[in-house]
Amino acid sequence: MTDTTLPTYADVEAAAARLNGVAHRTPAMTSATANRRTGASLVFKPENLQRMGAFKFRGGYNAIARLAAPQKKAGVVTFSSGNHAQAIAYAGRLLGVPTTIIMPHDAPAAKVAATQGYGGEVVRYDRYTENRLAIGERLAAERGLTIIPPYDHPDVIAGQGTAAKELIEDAGPLDILLVPLGGGGLLAGAALAARALNPACRVFGVEPEAGNDGQQSLRQGKIVTIGVPKTIADGAQTSFLGEMTFPIIQSVVEDIVTVGDAALVEAMRFFAERMKLVVEPTGCLAAAAAFTGAVPVAGKRVGVVLSGGNVDLASFARFIAPPA
Amino acid sequence: MTDTTLPTYADVEAAAARLNGVAHRTPAMTSATANRRTGASLVFKPENLQRMGAFKFRGGYNAIARLAAPQKKAGVVTFSSGNHAQAIAYAGRLLGVPTTIIMPHDAPAAKVAATQGYGGEVVRYDRYTENRLAIGERLAAERGLTIIPPYDHPDVIAGQGTAAKELIEDAGPLDILLVPLGGGGLLAGAALAARALNPACRVFGVEPEAGNDGQQSLRQGKIVTIGVPKTIADGAQTSFLGEMTFPIIQSVVEDIVTVGDAALVEAMRFFAERMKLVVEPTGCLAAAAAFTGAVPVAGKRVGVVLSGGNVDLASFARFIAPPA
Repeated sequence: MTDTTLPTYADVEAAAARLNGVAHRTPAMTSATANRRTGASLVFKPENLQRMGAFKFRGGYNAIARLAAPQKKAGVVTFSSGNHAQAIAYAGRLLGVPTTIIMPHDAPAAKVAATQGYGGEVVRYDRYTENRLAIGERLAAERGLTIIPPYDHPDVIAGQGTAAKELIEDAGPLDILLVPLGGGGLLAGAALAARALNPACRVFGVEPEAGNDGQQSLRQGKIVTIGVPKTIADGAQTSFLGEMTFPIIQSVVEDIVTVGDAALVEAMRFFAERMKLVVEPTGCLAAAAAFTGAVPVAGKRVGVVLSGGNVDLASFARFIAPPA
Repeated sequence: MTDTTLPTYADVEAAAARLNGVAHRTPAMTSATANRRTGASLVFKPENLQRMGAFKFRGGYNAIARLAAPQKKAGVVTFSSGNHAQAIAYAGRLLGVPTTIIMPHDAPAAKVAATQGYGGEVVRYDRYTENRLAIGERLAAERGLTIIPPYDHPDVIAGQGTAAKELIEDAGPLDILLVPLGGGGLLAGAALAARALNPACRVFGVEPEAGNDGQQSLRQGKIVTIGVPKTIADGAQTSFLGEMTFPIIQSVVEDIVTVGDAALVEAMRFFAERMKLVVEPTGCLAAAAAFTGAVPVAGKRVGVVLSGGNVDLASFARFIAPPA
């Protein structure tokens, strides 16, 4: 039985109670250099320092923790080649719930290994000839598993909202909140938190230039579907917003802006050099919007969510190395 | 007039009050992976997230803040090609105190630029034919400057002690505290904090294999001087402990152990990959002692100070890139 009611801030609060002592309360960080460069007062929420390296742990854990005992015993299934896969596998291990992750045959070996390392059972599929949702539904029916999708789920959205809740609690009232946008789980959760805790705060989503389905959707007032975008922001290579994330975003978010891959690389270098943080390309989306002026921030107090840090070392080394 | 009285924990407390709201209170961080690998419960103090990227800000700021008004007006001088130079320059800018930094002619351009960027006046000297201390003393006499040495100074030691104070306050009582060791400012400060707050905690210093002057000094009961050691831990390329740091270390520290450069690289890779942190080689000394077993930690609750993250991006990319 799927819960199709939109989550509210009360669900974010309940998620925070569930995550208390389990998820890391990541710090609110500042950088005098970043403030000087932008003329703003920026407060970063480094979710790359979250367990398993991304905010996804929050929603995955919250969704599994909410299940009834028989559902927990049977286990959960999801489809993802990214951070959600690891989040579900890791949360499942912590909660003693079996997890099955459907991943494409050509998923990077490192991501498959990481997911298996957290105890997830990985089922491969051919992404050119097979449909992952159909496989998930078949496995769910055959084995009695509960499907936990990567973003379009009330408990996932509520869990992700705890990141912005903590940021606003720790940083105090903000003028602007910038959030990376893929499928919209993080942004929708942040929107719920901001509307409740800091109603004057203007909330913006930031997505890759190559994949502006969110921007198109917000402007057209309906969910627009695009092809898989070509960008280094692999966590935001989504083709469409969710049936739950979109209406929440629509009701709270002021605008969705885009940044190019070059700005993401520049931001990665900034975080490594000045703030000593490894941030993955997708994790740099919101910061790049502040650094490039895609959202004007001068004179404002601005929350910036860094969504994750899961980039393999070889790629990271190439990104940050100075041009030869 | 130099204060030659050894600092006490009361000085660490006074330094903490001065640094409150100025230095970052860096978080206490944990890693399930690190705990699984070592069998210990490790709590990291990531001073790479400190202002200007290293614990040195604490001591530098405290020492300048303590000066009387006429001394502040005249300015301070120091000699360093590393983090202490930037710490003094940065703290001087924040406190409105002119700073002069004596650096070797062959100091990396990036470090000179960073120090100047923080507003420090850089005076170059030829390290093969000139004596930096003599130059410092001449400048001090000519211009009425106060010398603030990198580690052998009560206010510097007291300031550095605030890092371990915060760690013990945030993590609770520890069985073991592991601290990187160069000239001994950080270790002596940590020793003062541990003895006062957590007397049962066994304190260890960790230095590079190639530069074990601290280990030799502790075992021989006197300050041993060695040649400049060849190690990637550039912040620990000191030749001798200080006249103040040594007696404090001697009275509190249980032992000094060493780790090789390969273990530092492995630790850097671990922090980048699993904890999403950029830690410089010197900053990895204490962690490498836990990871290699140089100090046995299994079953113990262990504080691990990561002293800094100032490594240029090109070098860092080379360190973390997988072998070709």
